[in-house]
Amino acid sequence: MKTNIDCIFCKIIAGEIPCYKIYEDEKIISFLDIHPYVLGHLLIIPKEHSKWLWDISPKDYCNLMEKTKNLAEILKKIFKTEWIELVVAGIGVQHTHIHLLPRQFNDGLGELPIKPLVPKPSNEELKKMANKIKNSL
Amino acid sequence: MKTNIDCIFCKIIAGEIPCYKIYEDEKIISFLDIHPYVLGHLLIIPKEHSKWLWDISPKDYCNLMEKTKNLAEILKKIFKTEWIELVVAGIGVQHTHIHLLPRQFNDGLGELPIKPLVPKPSNEELKKMANKIKNSL
Repeated sequence: MKTNIDCIFCKIIAGEIPCYKIYEDEKIISFLDIHPYVLGHLLIIPKEHSKWLWDISPKDYCNLMEKTKNLAEILKKIFKTEWIELVVAGIGVQHTHIHLLPRQFNDGLGELPIKPLVPKPSNEELKKMANKIKNSL
Repeated sequence: MKTNIDCIFCKIIAGEIPCYKIYEDEKIISFLDIHPYVLGHLLIIPKEHSKWLWDISPKDYCNLMEKTKNLAEILKKIFKTEWIELVVAGIGVQHTHIHLLPRQFNDGLGELPIKPLVPKPSNEELKKMANKIKNSL
Protein backbone atom coordinates (compact mmCIF):
# COMPACT_ATOMS: atom_id res chain seq x y z
CA MET A 1 0.00 0.00 0.00
CA LYS A 2 1.24 3.43 -0.95
CA THR A 3 2.20 5.63 2.00
CA ASN A 4 3.99 8.95 2.33
CA ILE A 5 6.50 9.32 5.15
CA ASP A 6 5.88 13.05 5.43
CA CYS A 7 2.10 12.74 5.67
CA ILE A 8 0.47 13.24 9.06
CA PHE A 9 -2.49 11.06 8.10
CA CYS A 10 -0.19 8.22 6.97
CA LYS A 11 1.44 8.48 10.42
CA ILE A 12 -1.96 8.25 12.09
CA ILE A 13 -2.78 5.20 9.95
CA ALA A 14 0.55 3.61 10.94
CA GLY A 15 -0.24 4.30 14.62
CA GLU A 16 2.76 6.62 14.98
CA ILE A 17 0.49 9.55 15.88
CA PRO A 18 -2.52 8.94 18.12
CA CYS A 19 -6.07 9.80 17.06
CA TYR A 20 -9.58 9.65 18.42
CA LYS A 21 -10.47 6.68 16.27
CA ILE A 22 -14.07 6.00 15.30
CA TYR A 23 -13.75 3.23 12.74
CA GLU A 24 -11.13 1.17 10.96
CA ASP A 25 -11.11 -1.57 8.34
CA GLU A 26 -8.60 -2.81 5.79
CA LYS A 27 -9.05 0.21 3.51
CA ILE A 28 -10.48 3.05 5.60
CA ILE A 29 -9.97 4.82 8.89
CA SER A 30 -12.20 7.42 10.51
CA PHE A 31 -11.33 9.65 13.45
CA LEU A 32 -12.29 12.98 15.03
CA ASP A 33 -10.88 16.18 13.61
CA ILE A 34 -8.84 17.58 16.52
CA HIS A 35 -9.67 21.12 15.36
CA PRO A 36 -13.41 20.52 15.05
CA TYR A 37 -15.64 23.07 13.29
CA VAL A 38 -18.64 21.49 15.07
CA LEU A 39 -18.96 18.85 17.77
CA GLY A 40 -18.68 15.39 16.24
CA HIS A 41 -16.64 16.64 13.25
CA LEU A 42 -15.35 13.42 11.65
CA LEU A 43 -12.70 12.70 9.06
CA ILE A 44 -12.94 9.62 6.86
CA ILE A 45 -9.85 8.69 4.89
CA PRO A 46 -8.58 5.91 2.67
CA LYS A 47 -5.53 4.20 4.19
CA GLU A 48 -3.70 4.22 0.89
CA HIS A 49 -2.06 7.59 0.40
CA SER A 50 -3.53 9.73 -2.36
CA LYS A 51 -3.67 13.46 -2.63
CA TRP A 52 -7.12 13.80 -4.14
CA LEU A 53 -10.40 11.96 -3.73
CA TRP A 54 -10.65 11.81 -7.53
CA ASP A 55 -7.41 9.86 -7.80
CA ILE A 56 -8.55 6.75 -5.96
CA SER A 57 -9.85 3.72 -7.84
CA PRO A 58 -13.58 3.58 -8.63
CA LYS A 59 -13.99 0.56 -6.34
CA ASP A 60 -12.18 2.17 -3.39
CA TYR A 61 -14.06 5.41 -4.03
CA CYS A 62 -17.45 3.68 -3.87
CA ASN A 63 -16.43 1.82 -0.75
CA LEU A 64 -15.28 5.08 0.87
CA MET A 65 -18.51 6.88 -0.05
CA GLU A 66 -20.62 3.98 1.26
CA LYS A 67 -18.81 4.08 4.59
CA THR A 68 -19.29 7.85 4.64
CA LYS A 69 -23.04 7.29 4.29
CA ASN A 70 -23.00 4.77 7.15
CA LEU A 71 -21.14 7.18 9.40
CA ALA A 72 -23.46 10.05 8.45
CA GLU A 73 -26.40 7.90 9.53
CA ILE A 74 -24.73 7.25 12.88
CA LEU A 75 -24.12 10.99 13.37
CA LYS A 76 -27.78 11.73 12.54
CA LYS A 77 -28.86 9.48 15.39
CA ILE A 78 -26.31 10.65 17.94
CA PHE A 79 -26.79 14.36 17.29
CA LYS A 80 -30.55 14.02 16.70
CA THR A 81 -30.28 15.96 13.44
CA GLU A 82 -31.00 15.34 9.77
CA TRP A 83 -28.37 17.85 8.73
CA ILE A 84 -24.99 16.23 8.19
CA GLU A 85 -22.69 18.18 5.90
CA LEU A 86 -20.09 16.59 3.66
CA VAL A 87 -17.04 18.54 2.53
CA VAL A 88 -14.00 17.55 0.53
CA ALA A 89 -11.90 20.69 0.40
CA GLY A 90 -8.41 19.46 -0.19
CA ILE A 91 -5.54 21.83 0.43
CA GLY A 92 -4.98 21.36 4.16
CA VAL A 93 -3.52 17.91 4.77
CA GLN A 94 -2.46 16.47 1.41
CA HIS A 95 -4.07 13.07 1.94
CA THR A 96 -7.62 12.46 0.67
CA HIS A 97 -10.08 13.13 3.47
CA ILE A 98 -13.81 13.58 3.78
CA HIS A 99 -15.25 15.85 6.45
CA LEU A 100 -18.61 15.03 8.03
CA LEU A 101 -20.15 17.83 10.07
CA PRO A 102 -23.24 17.23 12.19
CA ARG A 103 -25.18 20.49 12.21
CA GLN A 104 -27.97 21.98 14.26
CA PHE A 105 -30.34 24.56 12.82
CA ASN A 106 -29.68 26.84 15.79
CA ASP A 107 -25.89 26.45 15.89
CA GLY A 108 -25.38 29.92 14.40
CA LEU A 109 -22.55 28.79 12.13
CA GLY A 110 -24.08 29.69 8.77
CA GLU A 111 -24.47 27.37 5.81
CA LEU A 112 -20.89 26.10 6.16
CA PRO A 113 -18.83 26.59 9.33
CA ILE A 114 -15.60 28.28 8.31
CA LYS A 115 -13.48 28.18 11.46
CA PRO A 116 -12.66 25.78 14.28
CA LEU A 117 -14.76 25.80 17.45
CA VAL A 118 -13.68 28.20 20.19
CA PRO A 119 -12.91 27.07 22.81
CA LYS A 120 -11.32 23.97 21.30
CA PRO A 121 -12.76 20.85 23.00
CA SER A 122 -10.40 19.32 25.54
CA ASN A 123 -8.71 15.97 24.95
CA GLU A 124 -11.08 14.47 27.51
CA GLU A 125 -14.10 15.84 25.65
CA LEU A 126 -12.75 14.55 22.33
CA LYS A 127 -12.17 11.12 23.83
CA LYS A 128 -15.72 10.99 25.20
CA MET A 129 -17.13 12.08 21.85
CA ALA A 130 -15.10 9.44 19.96
CA ASN A 131 -16.32 6.73 22.32
CA LYS A 132 -19.91 7.87 21.99
CA ILE A 133 -19.78 7.62 18.20
CA LYS A 134 -17.75 4.40 18.18
CA ASN A 135 -20.16 2.72 20.55
CA SER A 136 -23.04 3.47 18.18
CA LEU A 137 -21.48 1.67 15.20
CA MET B 1 -41.00 9.16 -8.93
CA LYS B 2 -41.43 11.41 -5.93
CA THR B 3 -41.53 15.12 -6.77
CA ASN B 4 -42.37 18.23 -4.76
CA ILE B 5 -44.45 20.90 -6.51
CA ASP B 6 -42.89 23.69 -4.46
CA CYS B 7 -39.30 22.64 -5.18
CA ILE B 8 -37.31 24.71 -7.66
CA PHE B 9 -35.08 21.75 -8.55
CA CYS B 10 -38.12 19.53 -9.22
CA LYS B 11 -39.32 22.30 -11.59
CA ILE B 12 -35.94 22.30 -13.35
CA ILE B 13 -36.12 18.50 -13.66
CA ALA B 14 -39.64 18.78 -15.12
CA GLY B 15 -38.38 21.38 -17.62
CA GLU B 16 -40.64 24.07 -16.16
CA ILE B 17 -37.65 26.23 -15.25
CA PRO B 18 -34.68 26.42 -17.64
CA CYS B 19 -31.16 25.49 -16.61
CA TYR B 20 -27.69 25.35 -18.07
CA LYS B 21 -27.78 21.59 -18.33
CA ILE B 22 -24.57 19.56 -18.33
CA TYR B 23 -25.80 15.99 -18.04
CA GLU B 24 -29.00 14.03 -17.70
CA ASP B 25 -29.95 10.37 -17.38
CA GLU B 26 -32.91 8.50 -15.94
CA LYS B 27 -31.93 9.20 -12.33
CA ILE B 28 -29.65 12.25 -12.31
CA ILE B 29 -29.39 15.74 -13.72
CA SER B 30 -26.43 18.11 -13.55
CA PHE B 31 -26.45 21.81 -14.36
CA LEU B 32 -24.53 25.00 -13.61
CA ASP B 33 -25.22 26.85 -10.39
CA ILE B 34 -26.56 30.23 -11.60
CA HIS B 35 -24.97 31.90 -8.57
CA PRO B 36 -21.55 30.32 -9.03
CA TYR B 37 -18.92 30.56 -6.29
CA VAL B 38 -16.27 29.73 -8.92
CA LEU B 39 -16.38 29.38 -12.69
CA GLY B 40 -17.67 25.93 -13.62
CA HIS B 41 -19.58 25.51 -10.33
CA LEU B 42 -21.80 22.46 -10.98
CA LEU B 43 -24.77 20.99 -9.18
CA ILE B 44 -25.50 17.28 -9.43
CA ILE B 45 -28.89 16.15 -8.19
CA PRO B 46 -31.01 13.02 -8.07
CA LYS B 47 -34.24 13.48 -10.03
CA GLU B 48 -36.31 11.90 -7.31
CA HIS B 49 -37.07 14.50 -4.68
CA SER B 50 -35.36 13.98 -1.33
CA LYS B 51 -34.31 16.56 1.19
CA TRP B 52 -31.04 14.99 2.27
CA LEU B 53 -28.32 13.04 0.51
CA TRP B 54 -28.45 10.51 3.33
CA ASP B 55 -32.11 9.72 2.62
CA ILE B 56 -31.61 8.26 -0.85
CA SER B 57 -31.30 4.52 -1.39
CA PRO B 58 -27.81 2.97 -1.20
CA LYS B 59 -27.97 2.08 -4.91
CA ASP B 60 -29.04 5.56 -6.02
CA TYR B 61 -26.46 7.09 -3.68
CA CYS B 62 -23.62 5.04 -5.20
CA ASN B 63 -24.80 5.87 -8.68
CA LEU B 64 -24.93 9.59 -7.80
CA MET B 65 -21.45 9.53 -6.26
CA GLU B 66 -20.03 7.67 -9.28
CA LYS B 67 -21.45 10.27 -11.63
CA THR B 68 -20.02 12.97 -9.37
CA LYS B 69 -16.58 11.40 -9.79
CA ASN B 70 -17.00 11.32 -13.57
CA LEU B 71 -17.99 14.97 -13.65
CA ALA B 72 -15.11 15.92 -11.32
CA GLU B 73 -12.73 14.26 -13.77
CA ILE B 74 -14.19 16.29 -16.63
CA LEU B 75 -13.79 19.51 -14.63
CA LYS B 76 -10.16 18.62 -13.85
CA LYS B 77 -9.44 18.45 -17.57
CA ILE B 78 -11.36 21.56 -18.59
CA PHE B 79 -10.01 23.77 -15.81
CA LYS B 80 -6.54 22.20 -15.92
CA THR B 81 -6.59 21.69 -12.15
CA GLU B 82 -6.40 18.76 -9.74
CA TRP B 83 -8.39 20.64 -7.13
CA ILE B 84 -12.11 19.95 -7.41
CA GLU B 85 -14.03 20.55 -4.20
CA LEU B 86 -17.15 18.63 -3.22
CA VAL B 87 -19.69 20.15 -0.86
CA VAL B 88 -23.06 18.93 0.35
CA ALA B 89 -24.30 21.71 2.59
CA GLY B 90 -28.01 21.31 2.61
CA ILE B 91 -30.13 24.18 3.85
CA GLY B 92 -30.44 26.31 0.70
CA VAL B 93 -32.67 24.49 -1.78
CA GLN B 94 -34.35 21.60 0.05
CA HIS B 95 -33.61 19.00 -2.65
CA THR B 96 -30.47 16.87 -2.35
CA HIS B 97 -27.68 18.48 -4.34
CA ILE B 98 -23.95 18.06 -4.62
CA HIS B 99 -21.73 21.05 -5.41
CA LEU B 100 -18.56 20.57 -7.46
CA LEU B 101 -16.20 23.53 -7.45
CA PRO B 102 -13.18 23.62 -9.74
CA ARG B 103 -10.50 25.57 -7.90
CA GLN B 104 -7.23 27.26 -8.84
CA PHE B 105 -4.43 27.65 -6.33
CA ASN B 106 -4.21 31.35 -7.16
CA ASP B 107 -7.95 32.09 -7.13
CA GLY B 108 -7.69 33.86 -3.77
CA LEU B 109 -10.91 32.33 -2.45
CA GLY B 110 -9.51 30.51 0.58
CA GLU B 111 -9.99 26.85 1.39
CA LEU B 112 -13.73 27.04 0.66
CA PRO B 113 -15.30 29.90 -1.31
CA ILE B 114 -18.08 31.35 0.83
CA LYS B 115 -19.88 33.76 -1.48
CA PRO B 116 -21.01 33.95 -5.10
CA LEU B 117 -18.71 35.40 -7.74
CA VAL B 118 -18.89 39.15 -8.27
CA PRO B 119 -19.68 40.14 -10.94
CA LYS B 120 -22.13 37.31 -11.57
CA PRO B 121 -21.37 35.69 -14.95
CA SER B 122 -23.81 36.74 -17.68
CA ASN B 123 -26.33 34.31 -19.14
CA GLU B 124 -24.21 34.20 -22.29
CA GLU B 125 -21.11 33.29 -20.25
CA LEU B 126 -23.03 30.60 -18.35
CA LYS B 127 -24.32 29.15 -21.62
CA LYS B 128 -20.82 29.00 -23.08
CA MET B 129 -19.50 27.37 -19.91
CA ALA B 130 -22.27 24.75 -19.90
CA ASN B 131 -21.56 23.91 -23.54
CA LYS B 132 -17.84 23.64 -22.89
CA ILE B 133 -18.39 21.12 -20.09
CA LYS B 134 -21.17 19.23 -21.90
CA ASN B 135 -19.04 18.86 -25.00
CA SER B 136 -16.28 17.23 -22.95
CA LEU B 137 -18.51 14.44 -21.63
